[in-house]
Amino acid sequence: MPDSQKNNDQTVADVRSVLEAQAAAWNRGDIEGFMNGYERSDDITFISGDTVTRGWQTVTDRYKRNYDTREKMGTLAFSELDVKPISSFYAVGSGRFQLTRANDNPRGRFTLLLRRTAQGWRIVHDHTSSASS
Amino acid sequence: MPDSQKNNDQTVADVRSVLEAQAAAWNRGDIEGFMNGYERSDDITFISGDTVTRGWQTVTDRYKRNYDTREKMGTLAFSELDVKPISSFYAVGSGRFQLTRANDNPRGRFTLLLRRTAQGWRIVHDHTSSASS
Repeated sequence: MPDSQKNNDQTVADVRSVLEAQAAAWNRGDIEGFMNGYERSDDITFISGDTVTRGWQTVTDRYKRNYDTREKMGTLAFSELDVKPISSFYAVGSGRFQLTRANDNPRGRFTLLLRRTAQGWRIVHDHTSSASS
Repeated sequence: MPDSQKNNDQTVADVRSVLEAQAAAWNRGDIEGFMNGYERSDDITFISGDTVTRGWQTVTDRYKRNYDTREKMGTLAFSELDVKPISSFYAVGSGRFQLTRANDNPRGRFTLLLRRTAQGWRIVHDHTSSASS
């Protein structure tokens, strides 16, 4: 197997691990742990519907505001995850999310741009849309 | 100015031109011309809400079905366009779209992955979400 293929396989595995760690953190009610998947930078962007949120702290605050109880957080599962390494330093990931909650099951899709940082692969751009859009 | 900066500036200008040509095609009712901005490949993906559409022809058919009159197409404008070159062969673009129509003005945001092809920069992945999502 050529080195570039091995590197790509490693990137795919590393990015999947980041998202699995995010889901595990979410499912123990740990939003700060979930936010560890994003680069801790003022430049990251999170798009949902027609709204863009910029910066790690602002995105964290938004999650904490929208999911301020364990009931609202529910249980998060990712599926249909596709990871495409596009350079040594960037990868694009896309897939589905579903929250299982007592009264509803919000679901949708996301596209992520991830960057290889000194701390590992981290999300720098997240575009999320839900079933209603 | 170092070569890499010149190359990045050229990529930004080239990607903007592709999107401007798309809007111009849309606004003369030319969906095939609009679709020229996408790579003519079975692998391209278009995500809207919770739905993924794969392949140039299938994405074209979806646009033709959803916008089958000039009234439904309305007038398309892009704004807040941000283009980030991420390698010699890939760039990420994001921004807002707005359709001006007789009875409503749908708007939202998009994130695009573009690839440098033999024909120029082309969209290979499009994630679009609208104001209601």
